[in-house]
Amino acid sequence: MAWLTATYLIDAPADLIEARAHALALEQSVECPLAAIGDERVLDEIVARVAAIEAVAEGRYRVDVDIAVETTGGEPAQFMNMIFGNCSLWEDVRLTGVDLPPSLLAKFGGPRHGIAGIRALVDAPERALTSTAMKPQGLPTDALARMCRTFALAGVDIVKDDHGIVDQPASRFAERVVACQRAVAEAAQATGKRTAYAPNLSGTPRVLRARAQIARDAGVQVVLVAPMLIGLPAFVDLVAEFPDFAYLAHPSAGGGRIAPELLFGRLFRLFGADATIFTNYGGRFSYPPAECAALAESARAPWGNLRPTLPVPAGGMLLDRVDELLDFYGLDTMLLIGGNLLIARDALLERTREYVAKVAGHGSAAVGIHA
Amino acid sequence: MAWLTATYLIDAPADLIEARAHALALEQSVECPLAAIGDERVLDEIVARVAAIEAVAEGRYRVDVDIAVETTGGEPAQFMNMIFGNCSLWEDVRLTGVDLPPSLLAKFGGPRHGIAGIRALVDAPERALTSTAMKPQGLPTDALARMCRTFALAGVDIVKDDHGIVDQPASRFAERVVACQRAVAEAAQATGKRTAYAPNLSGTPRVLRARAQIARDAGVQVVLVAPMLIGLPAFVDLVAEFPDFAYLAHPSAGGGRIAPELLFGRLFRLFGADATIFTNYGGRFSYPPAECAALAESARAPWGNLRPTLPVPAGGMLLDRVDELLDFYGLDTMLLIGGNLLIARDALLERTREYVAKVAGHGSAAVGIHA
Repeated sequence: MAWLTATYLIDAPADLIEARAHALALEQSVECPLAAIGDERVLDEIVARVAAIEAVAEGRYRVDVDIAVETTGGEPAQFMNMIFGNCSLWEDVRLTGVDLPPSLLAKFGGPRHGIAGIRALVDAPERALTSTAMKPQGLPTDALARMCRTFALAGVDIVKDDHGIVDQPASRFAERVVACQRAVAEAAQATGKRTAYAPNLSGTPRVLRARAQIARDAGVQVVLVAPMLIGLPAFVDLVAEFPDFAYLAHPSAGGGRIAPELLFGRLFRLFGADATIFTNYGGRFSYPPAECAALAESARAPWGNLRPTLPVPAGGMLLDRVDELLDFYGLDTMLLIGGNLLIARDALLERTREYVAKVAGHGSAAVGIHA
Repeated sequence: MAWLTATYLIDAPADLIEARAHALALEQSVECPLAAIGDERVLDEIVARVAAIEAVAEGRYRVDVDIAVETTGGEPAQFMNMIFGNCSLWEDVRLTGVDLPPSLLAKFGGPRHGIAGIRALVDAPERALTSTAMKPQGLPTDALARMCRTFALAGVDIVKDDHGIVDQPASRFAERVVACQRAVAEAAQATGKRTAYAPNLSGTPRVLRARAQIARDAGVQVVLVAPMLIGLPAFVDLVAEFPDFAYLAHPSAGGGRIAPELLFGRLFRLFGADATIFTNYGGRFSYPPAECAALAESARAPWGNLRPTLPVPAGGMLLDRVDELLDFYGLDTMLLIGGNLLIARDALLERTREYVAKVAGHGSAAVGIHA
């Protein structure tokens, strides 16, 4: 009998928390009253169990629930169903952690490349990494490819599509991928520095596969994917079918009642994200610094045999904050600065060079947190 | 230029709501400062626009944002990205509504069968419908098939797998589908009443397709799918590839910052759900009656050329409440009662007959809300 442990924060009065926790354990396993179960094996081996209840604040409890690994079937959709299916509908419950046995870690496999793989791709063994985004959507392909070339000439490690750019009339996927891949290749010839272009892979599973093939044929090595938009199970299929890509995960549509640290730091890693974009503190989003640090730590810290995932703080980041952010996150980090470069307009090349130089320069002075 | 309108509830102080609303419009379209945009067409035709801001409570505003249809690319993942991608990460924002132009409604297509199609399948043109679930997971196939036969002999319209039953060692999908399909066929021969068995389709897209083929080959006509577990885009592919199935949508993993009425009543319908299960008021879940009524109404009300979706209240429902619930929801409703039948154990057949009789009896007295 193998069990996994899922951890929840439950808001409840002290006199009701025990009942609430047990109700959650039933909801997340057999989903019926115990009185309806006549089978001893089901009672012993299938019904989830409340393992711990701990008060963390007035009216808020941390609850550990042991869930039988057997019930997950070793499949991503059913695994998510078991840890946060029906109880995602309970407004007083948040999912904050999972502790998984080695069998499940091995089943899902984690990143195929991880931090070391991405570093090798862009030829940057030690310093912090840089990334940026081509935006806004609505620009024609030639404008996007020009922007991509400029970023590459400035020496950015990864240039990604904005996650809103897919296959709209203004810039068709197949055309853009070829144009941008050519742009980074030409820039590399000019500068000797390798930049990876990461197209945004989105769509229904059938469309996703067709686009992944187009990208592979064009020589793409890194792709951007929003797992919660395409669906975690589709992400798992994609990673399995196209293991040569390094996957840069985007958090879009990931808001809700799963703690960001768990979803973006741990679950995306579990399912194969080599790098994970998350919204940095002090930008357009509201995660507090401690949550950002915990997220980066979840992505990088030892976890069974899973490779570490590269944390990518993003979201309204400013060039002026490069040193502060690298002090905070350490060198096993990739910064993602987009809009704050693009406001330079005609001086985009110079401003991007400044970004690249700041990040490279920081590497020589500070000591990062290595995983 | 076609625009869709997305409606949000935003929590903000009065002096900040305007800035917050405009920030959301940028976040959900170009995702960069306006100062970074030099292209006139993008400013005119791509940047989303705040259409209305209305106070609904102290510190809470209803905000309508017009989003260019072009930006959705007519694709489900990107459509979700545009209406609730990055701003799903804003804890002060909820998505509560969408108003879509006919072009998008036609693109996604809605239910292929709808209420009339499901009624035809189970030969019940007017009365309210009945459904139940085989549970708990962990039982072997023969026990589940026996349960399925008992439900069918009692005359239930749709008998579904519990949504936690997938392809675990205790009951393999391929074996269970054949056994349960045979059970309902035999029961129909004995009673003359048609019952549909709805297996739970889950898995990554590749697995999902293989299971759908197994189900089709076995003669299955109705399937259970949790769109938020398999991913909305995978759901869209499934409906397109297997249009002959009637789809019974399950809300698992659908909790978060999209209003239940919108997600389960409207978006599931948009993407092809013929029936939509939701958590009823007064059961194990906390939706208030008004929200349940609005959800049922969203599922059934006229919406462009989309067929109506059958509302299926569920979640800790009691046999004693049949009349109350049918008075509340009307006859174009399918009740889903599981655990409250199963507690009868050896008297399952009798208790299920009582359920079926209550629902059928109600039909002769009450007037339902027809869509």
